[in-house]
Amino acid sequence: MSAYDRLAARFARIATLGEASSVLGWDASAMMPPGGAAARGDQLAVLAGLGHEMLVAPEMAAALDEAEARAADPDQGGSDTGRIGRGGTGLREAGGSDAGWRGANLALMRRAHTRATALPLDLVEAHSRACSACETVWRTARPASDFAAVAPALAEVVRLTRETASALAPALGLSPHDAMMDGYQPGIGAADVAPVFARYERFLADALPRALERQARADRDGTPGLPRGPFAEDAQEALCRRLSRGAGLEAEHTRLDRSAHPFCGGTPTDVRITTRYDVANPVQALMGVMHETGHALYERGLPAAWARQPVGEAAGMAAHESQSLILEMQACLSDPYLGWLAGELNAALPGGAGGEVAWTGPALARSWRRVERSLIRVEADEMTYPAHVILRFRLEQAMVAGDLAVPDLPGAWSDGLHALLGIRPPDDRLGCLQDIHWYDGLFGYFPSYTLGAMAAAQLMAAARRDVPRLDEALGRGDLAPLLGWLRSRVHGQGARLGFNDLLRAATGRELDPADFEGHLAARYL
Amino acid sequence: MSAYDRLAARFARIATLGEASSVLGWDASAMMPPGGAAARGDQLAVLAGLGHEMLVAPEMAAALDEAEARAADPDQGGSDTGRIGRGGTGLREAGGSDAGWRGANLALMRRAHTRATALPLDLVEAHSRACSACETVWRTARPASDFAAVAPALAEVVRLTRETASALAPALGLSPHDAMMDGYQPGIGAADVAPVFARYERFLADALPRALERQARADRDGTPGLPRGPFAEDAQEALCRRLSRGAGLEAEHTRLDRSAHPFCGGTPTDVRITTRYDVANPVQALMGVMHETGHALYERGLPAAWARQPVGEAAGMAAHESQSLILEMQACLSDPYLGWLAGELNAALPGGAGGEVAWTGPALARSWRRVERSLIRVEADEMTYPAHVILRFRLEQAMVAGDLAVPDLPGAWSDGLHALLGIRPPDDRLGCLQDIHWYDGLFGYFPSYTLGAMAAAQLMAAARRDVPRLDEALGRGDLAPLLGWLRSRVHGQGARLGFNDLLRAATGRELDPADFEGHLAARYL
Repeated sequence: MSAYDRLAARFARIATLGEASSVLGWDASAMMPPGGAAARGDQLAVLAGLGHEMLVAPEMAAALDEAEARAADPDQGGSDTGRIGRGGTGLREAGGSDAGWRGANLALMRRAHTRATALPLDLVEAHSRACSACETVWRTARPASDFAAVAPALAEVVRLTRETASALAPALGLSPHDAMMDGYQPGIGAADVAPVFARYERFLADALPRALERQARADRDGTPGLPRGPFAEDAQEALCRRLSRGAGLEAEHTRLDRSAHPFCGGTPTDVRITTRYDVANPVQALMGVMHETGHALYERGLPAAWARQPVGEAAGMAAHESQSLILEMQACLSDPYLGWLAGELNAALPGGAGGEVAWTGPALARSWRRVERSLIRVEADEMTYPAHVILRFRLEQAMVAGDLAVPDLPGAWSDGLHALLGIRPPDDRLGCLQDIHWYDGLFGYFPSYTLGAMAAAQLMAAARRDVPRLDEALGRGDLAPLLGWLRSRVHGQGARLGFNDLLRAATGRELDPADFEGHLAARYL
Repeated sequence: MSAYDRLAARFARIATLGEASSVLGWDASAMMPPGGAAARGDQLAVLAGLGHEMLVAPEMAAALDEAEARAADPDQGGSDTGRIGRGGTGLREAGGSDAGWRGANLALMRRAHTRATALPLDLVEAHSRACSACETVWRTARPASDFAAVAPALAEVVRLTRETASALAPALGLSPHDAMMDGYQPGIGAADVAPVFARYERFLADALPRALERQARADRDGTPGLPRGPFAEDAQEALCRRLSRGAGLEAEHTRLDRSAHPFCGGTPTDVRITTRYDVANPVQALMGVMHETGHALYERGLPAAWARQPVGEAAGMAAHESQSLILEMQACLSDPYLGWLAGELNAALPGGAGGEVAWTGPALARSWRRVERSLIRVEADEMTYPAHVILRFRLEQAMVAGDLAVPDLPGAWSDGLHALLGIRPPDDRLGCLQDIHWYDGLFGYFPSYTLGAMAAAQLMAAARRDVPRLDEALGRGDLAPLLGWLRSRVHGQGARLGFNDLLRAATGRELDPADFEGHLAARYL
């Protein structure tokens, strides 16, 4: 077996362990009784530790050196790495030669190895265990708005995160916080994000008051009403399931369940999405499910020939978020799709007491696309959402740098939100306890949301140029043309290209916030 | 760290991996969409392979040798192994000194190591993968009664099972089939089972016609009726949940879900039980849930101080089955409990169209405790059930010995059932496709059911001697006195004692079918 083939087999085994962890993580959020939490934390820690051990094993380093040497040798590089891809033809259609895919795979293997060898096993297991423990406390602390209850566990997570970041930074040649960011969106750090966020702050300072004023003016002209609930959870769930299937997600590879914090988990052939239902208003469930469906379609569309290889994974979290947001914000909240959706809603959720008021596209647009200075990130509109991300980006930079201590987080949160949006949370439940991320150890992840939103707008603009009559299809509820374009330009590319290269290949440009600003201006100004 | 402590840490890690597999196995049966099956098979195979690698690692052998040497040295044996038990007091109450528990733990570690080192890693992974693949085919072949569809996959499972058995046999000094049986109920082989089964055949030949005749006579005298359904699945589920809780299973450590083949899975702090519902008749769901509740209570009652150690596990599958059957057959199908249950049923499942007929204890006894020559093991009454087990025991002995080829299984099944019960299955769905066991690689497991039934009767007789007014408590639906006795005599003992030693400590005798025959005679003759 060649060095590359040995590497491919080892990485497949590591990825298979990761799949097990992913299903167990889904179970912990969607199924597990609370008494199982401690044991689950141990299970995930052991799996994380084993994956780490496999990655840092001495044979792995030797095989990497050998495979890289062969790849660099023009007489041998081409022939050594030919056996892992199981579907060359489809891959060539997706762009890039087989050798290019193999080369990218090898580079990603090296990157994973570098990240892993920078971390001692004790630290990996301790970090995993601390995150499980903290997340469990957070699940009761959040509804009780009891930051003090979770602060010690969060402090431990931050301590181990700082230790992790400090160990990664020199190995990657990055700052500690950039080393964490790089784990979620490879190649993207604070130097990429800060100017984009600064530009957006200026845009928002101008656009938000104008959008709110325009909205208030329209309200004074009379807002078309929507049917009133209650809308039974089961009926909402049935419609969610139908819309998700209609978007291309196959029943035989998917589950839809309920959890406090909606997410997409599982594995590429067994994708698990969750949502939550509000009987008073179906928007959160419906658009939440379409958001997670966008993530799920990305996983389903990854190149099967490179399954369980680093190059067969998604291109990072910002790329992932671009796929959820292109479906939710760009496609499903567009005027044509909302016009079609109104008909579906009239059939599925006719509203309480006789259903005198019908669902209409303009009313959905007015009600579901409202701009507001609000407290909760996941409920925020697409214009103010980046402000929530900018707040978290700055706070987590400070925490990782050691400039912000956990007990000071609630105050810093309140001040930061006030500076960005002019509002303060009345309690921590609506403030720094609202997101699971930090409590589950995700530091450096938040920028991905806004990079993804910007990329989604940029991809949608390119899709509109490339795909004839895309908006007509959306007006029939037909997401297939958009999905087809995404499958070839994004999903099928796996992690062959970095975030900016992926965007350049699909849209002709690196990340450029102009399309996002243009989209917001067209929709809200 | 002492050799024993190193062993304990390693075994805890292996057990934690086993917990992950257990949850993933539950998910595969209760939650997973069919498209996830192939990947799940890989995940379970990798986890099984890793656990195996950890067990056969050279350091494990060295630590076992060292710990055994120290334990054999009277100057050192006591002090080396003192740190793993986290609750000495409770353990002493459960019988046996701390040193006794440690010694039993060390012996069980050695046994696990001997079994594992007898098997090459390739075989373990291939066997796990073949079982997953075969089980997946079986899930569609069974409803279609299409034995031919699953025969190739089963032949592969049998081939790898024979390879496994042949590898284990010399290491354990057992016959190949006994080596498989030993994996489920340590220390029990064909020489223990065959005479017990032969005795039961003689008992059955006499008792079954008499029981059927007595039943027919009672039918001619007029059978009291039961309410007719349909009984909504949700209402049945709610009652199942309440009865299971009432038996002592805590909501915060349990789930109850639905699957085609009811089972108890999960981990001791997160027990997952499943059942299936028949809207026409709640008996299968209710008694199925109480059966699985018996298994679950055993897991919940295992000695927490020895969690994730071999001695902290259940004492084998026959012991496990004794706990499900003492709850289902001995307690819940007793006259006093059925009398109480009738009241619960009248409140929860009053029956269709007005509910003119009420549930009564005598009618439940007559309807739910009927003896019948029937085709399906899991629906069989307690008197004929052992005949189903004897059939499978003989067929699997022949398959493991190579005397019965997979294509000949349906015919051999039909002939064997006819010889035992005088009936033949009309198709394979009702014949050799009915049970998941062989298709999931479980060869040597079936005898546990009947050994468990016999042990349950023996334990119940002892509990009646030890616990005052046990039947009065059952008449109030109060299972706590029985559970208390089982917790100290069985659950809390873990795997400290072998099957026969456990029975001897709890009842004063090794396994003796007399109490089971006496129980059947009292109930049916």
